[in-house]
Amino acid sequence: MVNQKYLDKAEVLIEALPYIQRFNRKIVVVKYGGSAMIDQELKENVIKDVVLLKLVGFKPIIVHGGGKEISRWVGKVGMEPRFINGLRVTDEATMELAEMVLAKVNKELVTLVQSLGIKAVGISGKDGGLLQVEKKYSDGQDIGYVGEVTQVNPKILYDLLEKDFLPIVFPVGTDEEFKTYNINADDAACAIAEAVHAEKLAFLSDIEGVCRDVNDPSTLISELHVHEAEKLISDGYVGGGMIPKIKNCIDAIENGVNRVHILDGRIPHSLLLEIFTNKGIGTAILREDGEKYYHEN
Amino acid sequence: MVNQKYLDKAEVLIEALPYIQRFNRKIVVVKYGGSAMIDQELKENVIKDVVLLKLVGFKPIIVHGGGKEISRWVGKVGMEPRFINGLRVTDEATMELAEMVLAKVNKELVTLVQSLGIKAVGISGKDGGLLQVEKKYSDGQDIGYVGEVTQVNPKILYDLLEKDFLPIVFPVGTDEEFKTYNINADDAACAIAEAVHAEKLAFLSDIEGVCRDVNDPSTLISELHVHEAEKLISDGYVGGGMIPKIKNCIDAIENGVNRVHILDGRIPHSLLLEIFTNKGIGTAILREDGEKYYHEN
Amino acid sequence: MVNQKYLDKAEVLIEALPYIQRFNRKIVVVKYGGSAMIDQELKENVIKDVVLLKLVGFKPIIVHGGGKEISRWVGKVGMEPRFINGLRVTDEATMELAEMVLAKVNKELVTLVQSLGIKAVGISGKDGGLLQVEKKYSDGQDIGYVGEVTQVNPKILYDLLEKDFLPIVFPVGTDEEFKTYNINADDAACAIAEAVHAEKLAFLSDIEGVCRDVNDPSTLISELHVHEAEKLISDGYVGGGMIPKIKNCIDAIENGVNRVHILDGRIPHSLLLEIFTNKGIGTAILREDGEKYYHEN
Amino acid sequence: MVNQKYLDKAEVLIEALPYIQRFNRKIVVVKYGGSAMIDQELKENVIKDVVLLKLVGFKPIIVHGGGKEISRWVGKVGMEPRFINGLRVTDEATMELAEMVLAKVNKELVTLVQSLGIKAVGISGKDGGLLQVEKKYSDGQDIGYVGEVTQVNPKILYDLLEKDFLPIVFPVGTDEEFKTYNINADDAACAIAEAVHAEKLAFLSDIEGVCRDVNDPSTLISELHVHEAEKLISDGYVGGGMIPKIKNCIDAIENGVNRVHILDGRIPHSLLLEIFTNKGIGTAILREDGEKYYHEN
Amino acid sequence: MVNQKYLDKAEVLIEALPYIQRFNRKIVVVKYGGSAMIDQELKENVIKDVVLLKLVGFKPIIVHGGGKEISRWVGKVGMEPRFINGLRVTDEATMELAEMVLAKVNKELVTLVQSLGIKAVGISGKDGGLLQVEKKYSDGQDIGYVGEVTQVNPKILYDLLEKDFLPIVFPVGTDEEFKTYNINADDAACAIAEAVHAEKLAFLSDIEGVCRDVNDPSTLISELHVHEAEKLISDGYVGGGMIPKIKNCIDAIENGVNRVHILDGRIPHSLLLEIFTNKGIGTAILREDGEKYYHEN
Amino acid sequence: MVNQKYLDKAEVLIEALPYIQRFNRKIVVVKYGGSAMIDQELKENVIKDVVLLKLVGFKPIIVHGGGKEISRWVGKVGMEPRFINGLRVTDEATMELAEMVLAKVNKELVTLVQSLGIKAVGISGKDGGLLQVEKKYSDGQDIGYVGEVTQVNPKILYDLLEKDFLPIVFPVGTDEEFKTYNINADDAACAIAEAVHAEKLAFLSDIEGVCRDVNDPSTLISELHVHEAEKLISDGYVGGGMIPKIKNCIDAIENGVNRVHILDGRIPHSLLLEIFTNKGIGTAILREDGEKYYHEN
Repeated sequence: MVNQKYLDKAEVLIEALPYIQRFNRKIVVVKYGGSAMIDQELKENVIKDVVLLKLVGFKPIIVHGGGKEISRWVGKVGMEPRFINGLRVTDEATMELAEMVLAKVNKELVTLVQSLGIKAVGISGKDGGLLQVEKKYSDGQDIGYVGEVTQVNPKILYDLLEKDFLPIVFPVGTDEEFKTYNINADDAACAIAEAVHAEKLAFLSDIEGVCRDVNDPSTLISELHVHEAEKLISDGYVGGGMIPKIKNCIDAIENGVNRVHILDGRIPHSLLLEIFTNKGIGTAILREDGEKYYHEN
Repeated sequence: MVNQKYLDKAEVLIEALPYIQRFNRKIVVVKYGGSAMIDQELKENVIKDVVLLKLVGFKPIIVHGGGKEISRWVGKVGMEPRFINGLRVTDEATMELAEMVLAKVNKELVTLVQSLGIKAVGISGKDGGLLQVEKKYSDGQDIGYVGEVTQVNPKILYDLLEKDFLPIVFPVGTDEEFKTYNINADDAACAIAEAVHAEKLAFLSDIEGVCRDVNDPSTLISELHVHEAEKLISDGYVGGGMIPKIKNCIDAIENGVNRVHILDGRIPHSLLLEIFTNKGIGTAILREDGEKYYHEN
Repeated sequence: MVNQKYLDKAEVLIEALPYIQRFNRKIVVVKYGGSAMIDQELKENVIKDVVLLKLVGFKPIIVHGGGKEISRWVGKVGMEPRFINGLRVTDEATMELAEMVLAKVNKELVTLVQSLGIKAVGISGKDGGLLQVEKKYSDGQDIGYVGEVTQVNPKILYDLLEKDFLPIVFPVGTDEEFKTYNINADDAACAIAEAVHAEKLAFLSDIEGVCRDVNDPSTLISELHVHEAEKLISDGYVGGGMIPKIKNCIDAIENGVNRVHILDGRIPHSLLLEIFTNKGIGTAILREDGEKYYHEN
Repeated sequence: MVNQKYLDKAEVLIEALPYIQRFNRKIVVVKYGGSAMIDQELKENVIKDVVLLKLVGFKPIIVHGGGKEISRWVGKVGMEPRFINGLRVTDEATMELAEMVLAKVNKELVTLVQSLGIKAVGISGKDGGLLQVEKKYSDGQDIGYVGEVTQVNPKILYDLLEKDFLPIVFPVGTDEEFKTYNINADDAACAIAEAVHAEKLAFLSDIEGVCRDVNDPSTLISELHVHEAEKLISDGYVGGGMIPKIKNCIDAIENGVNRVHILDGRIPHSLLLEIFTNKGIGTAILREDGEKYYHEN
Repeated sequence: MVNQKYLDKAEVLIEALPYIQRFNRKIVVVKYGGSAMIDQELKENVIKDVVLLKLVGFKPIIVHGGGKEISRWVGKVGMEPRFINGLRVTDEATMELAEMVLAKVNKELVTLVQSLGIKAVGISGKDGGLLQVEKKYSDGQDIGYVGEVTQVNPKILYDLLEKDFLPIVFPVGTDEEFKTYNINADDAACAIAEAVHAEKLAFLSDIEGVCRDVNDPSTLISELHVHEAEKLISDGYVGGGMIPKIKNCIDAIENGVNRVHILDGRIPHSLLLEIFTNKGIGTAILREDGEKYYHEN
Repeated sequence: MVNQKYLDKAEVLIEALPYIQRFNRKIVVVKYGGSAMIDQELKENVIKDVVLLKLVGFKPIIVHGGGKEISRWVGKVGMEPRFINGLRVTDEATMELAEMVLAKVNKELVTLVQSLGIKAVGISGKDGGLLQVEKKYSDGQDIGYVGEVTQVNPKILYDLLEKDFLPIVFPVGTDEEFKTYNINADDAACAIAEAVHAEKLAFLSDIEGVCRDVNDPSTLISELHVHEAEKLISDGYVGGGMIPKIKNCIDAIENGVNRVHILDGRIPHSLLLEIFTNKGIGTAILREDGEKYYHEN
């Protein structure tokens, strides 16, 4: 008869059934960064995951940063980085180079998606006026061409999705005078997810998710309602770089995103496993009225 | 870190990627019959498989017979079966009862699909004039209201698919004088698959597929080009009830269906495994120019 | 010159003009039952009437019961009817048989419509999740699988009408656990008419309409505003089986149906005559603000 | 019970059923002229007939001339008619007046249709560039601004029909230099019917139809295949003004119109009776492969 | 090198850029009358202007009167004009003639537009039930068939615009009893502009615009907010025939038109210059919140 | 009265009328390069011209190179250019840098267009699989990642045009193995113009057009039929870098482009003047059956 291996395969597919059903034709914004952008195999895994999401009926949008590539090119060109209050200043020359590097990374991702048989279109926040920004200050200090999103015009994204393309966005926008600004990729992903009323927003970075004990990965929390996330912060359980990340998540949910996932991009296919299996692999933050559905171990 | 079980799950989903891609928005006609219609668990498995096909972008159509239910009801009502040349005669009373039983089975399947969250509509070959037949004779003998499909009007199927319903068809049609006839479910499935230019036609029955040695299931042939299938018949490798089945398959391919699958409905999820994994589980018959893509063991 | 006969013919057609105009593209739900379902000539007349309505631009939907066929089959199969408080109990076996008989009658009507050149599709309340029910009790007594409509999902009806089919519905639905229930055909017709905001709902049964004096057909009332209908009941002019019928009509009008007709299915073409001539042939119940337009004799 | 009068009414409506069905959504061009344009009651009857055609699903287009109105206005204004070879010459002043009179008649018909609840739009052959003409000579003689249709641009008609208007056309067009010309209404109706591939073209004029014996109306021929019509001419059975009329009909059929009717506009509702009853009232000329379907008396 | 003449040409086109952009796909109603209807060259200029508006993306609608043509024809036919209180009475015969003349003028304009390669359709307020009126009295005196617009049914205009035609309307309508009435062309243009929510309404007549000093054309006011226009009237700066004109403009703006232009039709291309250059050539009246954008000289 | 300056303005707009009309909704591919890409004022002029084309109903597509920016960045990064047979070799590092610079230029153009109120989307030949290439050799020599277009998939362009965006393309594509290649911008513009069946293809570069005497700009030829262009080459009138340019033009016309323009990008608004005035400013090459319509001086 048929051996167990095949039956197991069938089980996995069937297990995915309710998730595919639940999220059919829903928009999923994937913020892609960190190690998963550097390691070639991880990169291909992430893209395969996103392509699968598209094929089974989701409408994914990728938002990515430039990771370490920008620093590498700043060095290559021999620029002198300038700092204020310990913060790197994005002067005009740096902005120009950053945009070039982001565009390069963007087209690599486009090519990778296309090589898997899915049509992708790479755009920046300038195209179709997607992201409008205003200058951002750091504690009142001028840190150059760093922008804060003030308005999202999602028409180009809706149009590309309608025409069955996978949009890949890099976070550069213009202000009212059409000057160019760099945007934090997490912030851009949030703003976009909110503007398109995404069902899901997934952050792929070098973090395992939220743990009750930072030093013990086995204390990973699979699902958190917004108020639980807020309590974790106020109780001092999470700290450091995690706080703005979680605040971003909470903000996204309060602006209409249904569920935000913090995923470890270093785990192969973490996106797929989080979405399609009964046991999430990272941490999901959800609306107060959202149903927790991962089975506890 | 993440244990192997999760990575294996991801692998299965990723393995399905190219198949989902290849058959996106293609019509798959599933002829459903045999044991898989009787055993409740098998039945639910088949329906889950079809629902999954729909969710990942296929457009499935189910064609089913009444299996042993018709015989059971003939007994229950106390009818006297009549035979000519050893063939059961479908007189008017039998035809009436058969239609009733088929309708009942049809609505059970509709309910099962709906309970999985997919909208289904059950129709007969009379609805929308789907199946037009003429009286069929067996070696010149009148065997009653048994019809042969002469014309398929697929408008109702296209309309239901466009409106995102899963059509479930039972094989009863009318002749030019609007008299009711029973149709062999295999034949109806073939005629429908041809009329809608199905990408795939899958027969779910109590057969393992085509084996080189009927007595040795390990000699199952995964893929056959049409001429190979014909040669198997002419060389006498297949016999008995298998011959008309294979002839039906060849006929379907010659009339525009791309690939016909003979699957063992007794294996759980055989439909899913055949379509989504690298190693088919039954026998696929394909066009001369069709590419074989299952890996040999 | 042209003889009078021809001029009379033209007059009849011209007389229909304003009615055709008034109801162009409006939905008409026809509840079909009683003698008109048994007598073959009456049956053909009813179907011809409905087909004509469709051809001149109405959008008819037929809802039918099984009439005496169900009782006939209960006897045929040798079932023992069970009663509680004088009410027949629909146990599982009876429900199964009832569904089969209703499906059979449904397909007969489909065939009859198709034979007149109009495409029909027969569905039950299960298809497309049309009718959701909950168990109904009779004075607290369990009378089996008899359901009360709790929700109508009219998408399948709108889709079939858009695709130019004539939908023919039999009143079987499912509860939240997807169990099968029988529904009173009058109730199902009402629920459907309300859900699709029908212009008209016409009951074809073995009643002449509402008469001031039950024993004198010449006292038939052609048109009643809702409050007049209510007064007839409170004044005791109508009684017996007529009361729930009229209450049904009032209910339908209060839920958005424009005009409800009680017609005698035993009169040939009563549907046509009621709708297309200056003198109605049954009783119409209309909204308080509805205009009475039949000429008194 | 119901008296016979009502049953007769129903019969007439049912008799219309197959004709309504056959011509559903088909274009019918009605050339309207002669006495039926002068007598107010006949005029209203014709318009009611056309409106009924529209309501039961046909797509009628009216083409009309100006009848005796033009002559009346020529007199009123005190113009001196000029003749060449016995033919009236349409000089510039006459053309201007004719266009004015035709426009007036056109708007009267528009108003009449609108008063019956149907939206109509009156246009000339100039609007949307419907009718392009070239100057026509009579035996080489210049008879002024009389044009022959060289091109029909039916877009405006299709657009009005799509938007559910009833188009009413008067036969004035322009040549390549955008000069204005009068067109014979019969010719314009033919050219339009051909351009829109009309199912039917009906001439309403003061002729009873084609008779075997011109002096005996009882010899009216109900239906003629093209070759029979040609034979009638060559055998000398028809003569005088009838010959060009029949040649026009034959021409229309050879250019794609399915059936041409010659009707006596003096008979009330002749259009309706011809189309909706089993016994035509005028003469229909049909394609060689067209089926004769009027019953002989 | 390129001489200055060419660079100047480019400048003019570039100057038009923001205006084309601002009014893209907006509806502009042009009331056309006065000298510009009599002088053939002016007439061609106006039509060229309107055609250019259409080509660069506006949606123009022309509304025109009959100017002096009606009086000329009244004389020609030898009618005796009748007066009440010094006002000409539109009796039935005059109305009939007026409609004929207006239709003639209408078709001339249609032909002129068509000769420039744009498809036009000429209609009256009767077509498609565009303009419904009621009888208008002058200080209680019956002045015959002069109507006041009570309802506009703009469907025919929207339909023609959607189908890319340029609609040309003459102001004749019907009352509830379908009697014919003449309508003041300015009033008809206002009513239509309001009903279609026109971006602009432009009056082309023999007035230079609004001047601070009626005797000094150099005191022309380019732009007026509504309250400024009202003040001009209350302060007595404008008088005579100008008052109703300006009141019409104010009324139009208060009913949803964005900007109303009073233009001198005697200046060649005044419409084009008003719309496409930085310095308007007539007077524009705008909403309180409308931005003045013409440069002062 | 109105001074001459205004009348002249009107004349220029009216002169543009027939050109706007002729090319309404037609696709115009503008190859943009040379000095017009460096001088900021010229750059803004070109973009204004293209925006005007879009506003008056054309569908422009911009294809641009990187001009001298690429060389500048090669120097900046300190790369050692490598040459073979005097040709620069595009090694992997150069390709990477070139793509970055082209993307930067692309986004500058996008921003410029957006600042004029038109939505633009900048893409490369990778996006949506627009440009597929194969490696190009120069006389058999490997010159690195320089590609020749083998296939154009214009779907993304049609989609962006349909959604009313102005597409701006930079010429980088992938081969079958998804490796990145640089493409000559003139070749890319030709391939794209052919694939979308452009009405016009305009080359904006530092050439005045085709002159009979290279040293005398006054001998500029306004219009050339293909055979005339070919004769100019064979007769030796044109030489040097002009020959491949003209061959490209001829090739484009033979593959379906209607008219190719060689324009001097150094003349302000040369694109506008060429298209909208009676006297072209560069050289147009047209199909054998194309009509010459520029007036000779």
